[in-house]
Amino acid sequence: MRFRLTPRDTSFFDLFTDSAQHLVTGAKLLGELLGADRPGRKALAKQLNEAEHLADEATHAIMRRVNQTFVTPFDRDDIYELASSLDDCMDYMEEASDLIVLYKIDELPPRVAEQVAILQRCAELTAEAMPHLRSMGDLSEYWVEINRLENQADKLHRKLLAQLFDEVTDPIHLMKVKEVVEVLEQAADAFEKVANTVETIALKES
Amino acid sequence: MRFRLTPRDTSFFDLFTDSAQHLVTGAKLLGELLGADRPGRKALAKQLNEAEHLADEATHAIMRRVNQTFVTPFDRDDIYELASSLDDCMDYMEEASDLIVLYKIDELPPRVAEQVAILQRCAELTAEAMPHLRSMGDLSEYWVEINRLENQADKLHRKLLAQLFDEVTDPIHLMKVKEVVEVLEQAADAFEKVANTVETIALKES
Amino acid sequence: MRFRLTPRDTSFFDLFTDSAQHLVTGAKLLGELLGADRPGRKALAKQLNEAEHLADEATHAIMRRVNQTFVTPFDRDDIYELASSLDDCMDYMEEASDLIVLYKIDELPPRVAEQVAILQRCAELTAEAMPHLRSMGDLSEYWVEINRLENQADKLHRKLLAQLFDEVTDPIHLMKVKEVVEVLEQAADAFEKVANTVETIALKES
Repeated sequence: MRFRLTPRDTSFFDLFTDSAQHLVTGAKLLGELLGADRPGRKALAKQLNEAEHLADEATHAIMRRVNQTFVTPFDRDDIYELASSLDDCMDYMEEASDLIVLYKIDELPPRVAEQVAILQRCAELTAEAMPHLRSMGDLSEYWVEINRLENQADKLHRKLLAQLFDEVTDPIHLMKVKEVVEVLEQAADAFEKVANTVETIALKES
Repeated sequence: MRFRLTPRDTSFFDLFTDSAQHLVTGAKLLGELLGADRPGRKALAKQLNEAEHLADEATHAIMRRVNQTFVTPFDRDDIYELASSLDDCMDYMEEASDLIVLYKIDELPPRVAEQVAILQRCAELTAEAMPHLRSMGDLSEYWVEINRLENQADKLHRKLLAQLFDEVTDPIHLMKVKEVVEVLEQAADAFEKVANTVETIALKES
Repeated sequence: MRFRLTPRDTSFFDLFTDSAQHLVTGAKLLGELLGADRPGRKALAKQLNEAEHLADEATHAIMRRVNQTFVTPFDRDDIYELASSLDDCMDYMEEASDLIVLYKIDELPPRVAEQVAILQRCAELTAEAMPHLRSMGDLSEYWVEINRLENQADKLHRKLLAQLFDEVTDPIHLMKVKEVVEVLEQAADAFEKVANTVETIALKES
């Protein structure tokens, strides 16, 4: 295996930007899926599944590059961490869409759309932040805002759980909706993990 | 950013001790909450929520210190691991108290109080152990005892699950109580994770 | 503590092989348990529990060895990761068998046996791969095959969930079976984690 000997392999930034772009696509599809009818949902879930495959390939491209590169722009472990936490965001969004179709859930509480709106905002901010890794400039606003959004998502999630247990009387329907709501909350946590990793990288470099 | 150039920054030990003290407070509040009536529980859950915020700040103080310190008393990654696993203990205890209030669970099986008693003992032992990180003395008793307590918690947890499925006939009530029981088990696992990290640190230093 | 000063401590490979052998035993016992009657299941779950204890000891032996060895055959962190992910495979298989007995589940859908058959294949492949860590030869076939099996397990798992929610009308029985199915899926994920770790190690060495 040949090693690249240029002091800093800048293409990592492009790879991370690429990876985060898939999250914007995924979050958009997830929002559309909520508003669609059953056949529409099936088609959109398939599109989200394909987006997840592309994101997977983007993650593997980063992993391969780390292993082939002699000098990385920041810590190898932080690159792994960032790549795999970006990947987790997509996995959870895809899982949520898949469960909605698989469980044939026709109606979801309106607050689920609010959860997804937060994920869309997180995805956009994350995609905007990635190119700034190169200069390490202007990143603190990004991670502060993601942490604020994750707090908001967490409060919403707990309200949703209380509402579900107050209002839903069919235990099997409750189990289905609860699982979707939990997976969306895990997606929000994964975006926070990405932001925390970016913060760690930026602080090390400062 | 200025780096501290003293060979070993001793204040890490104070920060870890501080962080573990919040766990003692949290476990105590959780025990009181179990014995309280509904309004009392709400008030105690709020107090536990505040304790969780303080613990969060203690964790962030450790993270900031790692990033600003040139020579740390032990591996940077082990410091992160220890700080974040201490934080997890608190998060799970706070989540359990929040769920009890959110789900309006009036009655919990007596074995739940036994779970919490184990967490209280874990918290006390952890808080007593932290100052000993400085000298790395007398720590093996601590991690052996935590592992014993976690085994006990695990057995109790499985008995509780069997009991719930045997006795509870309302599936929605079962879902609520099961979730609380699972989160308390995760808290016990988190205390074991802390002890395992301490063991790793101590073995590296020996 | 004395350090071994031989340049590469080959016995790590034996320890990993030993650890993976326990997984073959565990997966076999889990398969037998599915076909047994209630008293037979109890006896087999006990055997699986003992296998899990042996696997635990194998993991601890690796951890101790890392801490006592000056020059390890590959990255210390990768050794930890590999040892603990092998351990996770066993923990999930043991948890599944324990839940089946604890919840007194008499009938499981036939697809659960397919899940376990995949785990058995994963365990065999993993045990065959471990001795090859020494020469780092012929490992890519192993990790490609495990990834394929994990994809298959994932598809099967989702089909099983859809089937459960379509067919099972008793919510409490549904909760029990769903939990077993989820834990078996986590076992498949854990085998993939092992393979990913082996891939990382092999790529670093190439």
